[in-house]
Amino acid sequence: MLDIIKKRRSIRKFTAEKIGQEKINAILEAAMYAPSAANKQPWYFIVIDEPSIMKKIMEVHPHSRMFETASHGILVCGDLNLQHGDGYWLADCGAATQNILLAASSLSIGSCWLGVFPRVERMKAFKELFGLSQQVEVFSLIALGYAAENKAIPERYHPEKVFMNKWGHKKNEL
Amino acid sequence: MLDIIKKRRSIRKFTAEKIGQEKINAILEAAMYAPSAANKQPWYFIVIDEPSIMKKIMEVHPHSRMFETASHGILVCGDLNLQHGDGYWLADCGAATQNILLAASSLSIGSCWLGVFPRVERMKAFKELFGLSQQVEVFSLIALGYAAENKAIPERYHPEKVFMNKWGHKKNEL
Repeated sequence: MLDIIKKRRSIRKFTAEKIGQEKINAILEAAMYAPSAANKQPWYFIVIDEPSIMKKIMEVHPHSRMFETASHGILVCGDLNLQHGDGYWLADCGAATQNILLAASSLSIGSCWLGVFPRVERMKAFKELFGLSQQVEVFSLIALGYAAENKAIPERYHPEKVFMNKWGHKKNEL
Repeated sequence: MLDIIKKRRSIRKFTAEKIGQEKINAILEAAMYAPSAANKQPWYFIVIDEPSIMKKIMEVHPHSRMFETASHGILVCGDLNLQHGDGYWLADCGAATQNILLAASSLSIGSCWLGVFPRVERMKAFKELFGLSQQVEVFSLIALGYAAENKAIPERYHPEKVFMNKWGHKKNEL
């Protein structure tokens, strides 16, 4: 698990191989096993496999060129009326998105998290493109496919980001 | 990995056994391998092992009684000046928080995610308690310890939460 967490990288070039439905379902299942505030599970997922929709995504989102080769996309949405309190949908959808990336990695599928929230113009454009209900907002978009690029594992552990019991405090053992 | 994702449950009763420093470091490393918008890594982590601080947490947060038995806590914070755009720290800290829960599970450590954002009164109280810098805000608090309770795996896969290419659309194979 720790290995999969460390090996996950944003993949932006994919092979022509399509992801099978069983694996897509496993990834969606992982998403729905994310924790959510008061267990409200306020999420919806739109699976994208239509090339015409991928083309429209690339017209709307400035960093979405990887959809030229992606096998699938998953749009992670939150229902503002289903969430526990005003704003918890962001935490819930964040956890679900991360589960999608890790589940994909564990199935040897490459992924790239495209930011939608908090960019209001992207949220609006996607809401329109996918015909979302009034109370549903887009949190993130994930591109999925089999990687056609290799990326090294960078060093991301920075002990200076950790304090003990109080801001600015350190312990010798850290 | 999918198994760990499915088996993770919120644990609120812990044994007296303390988590070793090596495992805490592994969990923090997993947190820092979360993706972040434009790779800004705008997070900070405060590890809590002082009983006096845990007591104060229980005075501030209404759902934190598990700190009576928790071995450690991790406060996940975001630096608003380090984030990529106004609001991305929420997605970044959400992914880091989920990595903490999953890394803990993979090490047989129980965890519970306590919501802080978007509860302004909790954010303010924790900011004061931990003496955070002006530009740093609290996203979440995680209680950690060895589980003293067993929880069954619920069914959380709901196919009705999935659409194909457009809101409300289904495909037979889903």
